[in-house]
Amino acid sequence: MAQKYSHIQQEAYEANMQLPKLNLVLFTFGNVSAADRSLGVFAIKPSGVPYEDLTPEKMVIVDFDGNTVEGILRPSSDTKTHAVLYKHWEKINGIVHTHSTYATAWAQSLRDIPIYGTTHADHNTVDIPCAPPMSDEMIGGNYEYETGFQIMNCFTDKGLSYEEVEMILVGNHAPFTWGKTAAKAVYNSAVLEQIAQMAYITESIKADALRLKDALIKKHYERKHGANSYYGQ
Amino acid sequence: MAQKYSHIQQEAYEANMQLPKLNLVLFTFGNVSAADRSLGVFAIKPSGVPYEDLTPEKMVIVDFDGNTVEGILRPSSDTKTHAVLYKHWEKINGIVHTHSTYATAWAQSLRDIPIYGTTHADHNTVDIPCAPPMSDEMIGGNYEYETGFQIMNCFTDKGLSYEEVEMILVGNHAPFTWGKTAAKAVYNSAVLEQIAQMAYITESIKADALRLKDALIKKHYERKHGANSYYGQ
Amino acid sequence: MAQKYSHIQQEAYEANMQLPKLNLVLFTFGNVSAADRSLGVFAIKPSGVPYEDLTPEKMVIVDFDGNTVEGILRPSSDTKTHAVLYKHWEKINGIVHTHSTYATAWAQSLRDIPIYGTTHADHNTVDIPCAPPMSDEMIGGNYEYETGFQIMNCFTDKGLSYEEVEMILVGNHAPFTWGKTAAKAVYNSAVLEQIAQMAYITESIKADALRLKDALIKKHYERKHGANSYYGQ
Amino acid sequence: MAQKYSHIQQEAYEANMQLPKLNLVLFTFGNVSAADRSLGVFAIKPSGVPYEDLTPEKMVIVDFDGNTVEGILRPSSDTKTHAVLYKHWEKINGIVHTHSTYATAWAQSLRDIPIYGTTHADHNTVDIPCAPPMSDEMIGGNYEYETGFQIMNCFTDKGLSYEEVEMILVGNHAPFTWGKTAAKAVYNSAVLEQIAQMAYITESIKADALRLKDALIKKHYERKHGANSYYGQ
Repeated sequence: MAQKYSHIQQEAYEANMQLPKLNLVLFTFGNVSAADRSLGVFAIKPSGVPYEDLTPEKMVIVDFDGNTVEGILRPSSDTKTHAVLYKHWEKINGIVHTHSTYATAWAQSLRDIPIYGTTHADHNTVDIPCAPPMSDEMIGGNYEYETGFQIMNCFTDKGLSYEEVEMILVGNHAPFTWGKTAAKAVYNSAVLEQIAQMAYITESIKADALRLKDALIKKHYERKHGANSYYGQ
Repeated sequence: MAQKYSHIQQEAYEANMQLPKLNLVLFTFGNVSAADRSLGVFAIKPSGVPYEDLTPEKMVIVDFDGNTVEGILRPSSDTKTHAVLYKHWEKINGIVHTHSTYATAWAQSLRDIPIYGTTHADHNTVDIPCAPPMSDEMIGGNYEYETGFQIMNCFTDKGLSYEEVEMILVGNHAPFTWGKTAAKAVYNSAVLEQIAQMAYITESIKADALRLKDALIKKHYERKHGANSYYGQ
Repeated sequence: MAQKYSHIQQEAYEANMQLPKLNLVLFTFGNVSAADRSLGVFAIKPSGVPYEDLTPEKMVIVDFDGNTVEGILRPSSDTKTHAVLYKHWEKINGIVHTHSTYATAWAQSLRDIPIYGTTHADHNTVDIPCAPPMSDEMIGGNYEYETGFQIMNCFTDKGLSYEEVEMILVGNHAPFTWGKTAAKAVYNSAVLEQIAQMAYITESIKADALRLKDALIKKHYERKHGANSYYGQ
Repeated sequence: MAQKYSHIQQEAYEANMQLPKLNLVLFTFGNVSAADRSLGVFAIKPSGVPYEDLTPEKMVIVDFDGNTVEGILRPSSDTKTHAVLYKHWEKINGIVHTHSTYATAWAQSLRDIPIYGTTHADHNTVDIPCAPPMSDEMIGGNYEYETGFQIMNCFTDKGLSYEEVEMILVGNHAPFTWGKTAAKAVYNSAVLEQIAQMAYITESIKADALRLKDALIKKHYERKHGANSYYGQ
């Protein structure tokens, strides 16, 4: 029976193990999940288990309503946020949550990260959005579930597509990223942290730094994305 | 005879060895102790001995009045601070002192660390307190002993509970943390350093950053603490 | 046949592998090339291939007009910039492009890096130039090709010699460095990142820091360069 | 014959190898020497040789007038500064020069490092002095020799003792440290870098941070120094 999920357990395990390697987590402050849409489930890190103690078998299997399908351990406390996003954003198969230093500091400042250079434009054509803090009712209610909706509402309000922009800051909290695979979602977390650090230093060097101009945003984004992209193999 | 204390020597040794691994100390600028309340003693790092030369046997056994009970080496110069805290705060069994970079910089600024995000709220519901510098009389007297009282007085003045808030900045000096075990106290030191770094960056990004709102503080703290907590296994 | 280029493939491979070792790249955000002027070609990193998967054989051979001469993989997306520089700057045999953190932040701020100390003067007698962003026409046209001309035009406008100043920031983008060998170009990338970080901290410590005075610039540069240099063996 | 100097060659070698390990140097931007006063010479790193290529035998033997006594390689370009300091400061046996990031940034800002906390006071009772840049005549003359005098003059002008304060910033340049042994001088370089980083962060957190009060400076310094010290074994 367990064999049924071993591919996403393996995928989630490997992606989770990248977080400490990429310096994106202290202790257990992060989690990755990997979904199989044909099975309607995802594998996610168990809550509070140190990375060095993880094994593929410990990854918990959860459905898109947040119910545990298989696994002895309790899944990540952020599991419902993952479930909501998988349920409504049908083309993603991996989600990452970290408290990486610079991205979290931007989230704490409640500011979008301005697009200051091509490193940013290689991955996004817009400022990295920062969702506002939730209402006290949402916080006091089904918190992690509502966090998923807060993320989606922010994208709706700003007119963003989750297929183009694969990262967000949750205000006062920390970043979430996603992608077509768990590995891509981890990649996005590392890119976000790098962009966040560079933007912070840029503003320190020049308080009134200018956003990148449209032609350069378009050019760099299209080098790596879309029909005419020519980056990579 | 020595066998009597070997469990806390081992515990203190392992906890001390985590400090360089977590990048919390340069050279010997830190120390950890582990207490056994049934024996009324604690094991603490010997003074000025490099981490790479430590062994469990070198941990010095000291009672809660600061007297060496067993051990050839001189205990940490901060031993009396540990002793005072163990004597008066009866539910702690581990204490850590470091000069970790960001926490120490906040201590040097004489400011409490404002609660800017959920990383902070996951561990504390209040700003990290910074005890004011001592009077010249206290400094010139039994300095390390008085440091313990300065820490406790700060908690009394601010109405804080040492069981809830397990960390403090000693103004102009550096952080102390504690916990139910030495390992937990070390964990708190690493968390404090991370919170301190994030708060510093947050203020650089947004000079007038806002403190986290109460509903979010309560929610995140209760995810990890108390009867209804649901983080971890 | 392939043997013909194996020396520059090896050189380019080794130089590329230095980038992650020197903490100058995240993922694949960088590339190094090594030229053989007698053959009229250079070896360059394939596009988007992770550093851990590189081998000397994977380096792509390209001529100075940017045409692939040998190699199965697609060369770096920045290949045309390398080609233009090799074609017009006839004494360089190595080029590096990275998105290293501090140098990129200066590029994003559109500022030259002021010469604040001898670490800078040991390598350059002038501020590190930052080329302005290109016109929308140049960006929308043959972008990477035009980037090469933007770099050369900046040197012409500022009256700089590419033989003396072996580094530049491309505004809103990131640094390029070069040298008589690929290894020297990598060295220059690491030096630039160090200078960029120090200049950033210097301005944070003293907002109106002064540029180094001429006598000291001259002295330090001549210690390492020219007929009367006396640094090294 | 060579045996005569092998003890200081070994000492200088080991001390030099600590610099990259402690993250105090990029490439070859640093050097350590170790003196034997009974022989009237010191062993110093050869100029421009990468740390990974060093061996004890490559350390060059130089007398206190800066003349090479033994060794095939050219000594560090900063050798005359070392010679001058050994000649006039008769109780030091080790000297270190680095371009460590934060200490160099303070040197570039031409500011003394204010004493903000006990980490600083554990090692010095005064602000870390920053010597002003030299006159153009001194720079254009016997530069490295004059650097030694610039350091000594700064101590005279400020009424400092080289036996108490074992570190200085040379304005616009970088730090020098010294001590009774080469190992102690290296220790001082690492401490200086740590103090420099903390002071920088402290001022960012609180622009008008206060210097440490006298009672606390005295207490912490005397814990580690003098007849009544009680730190260490």
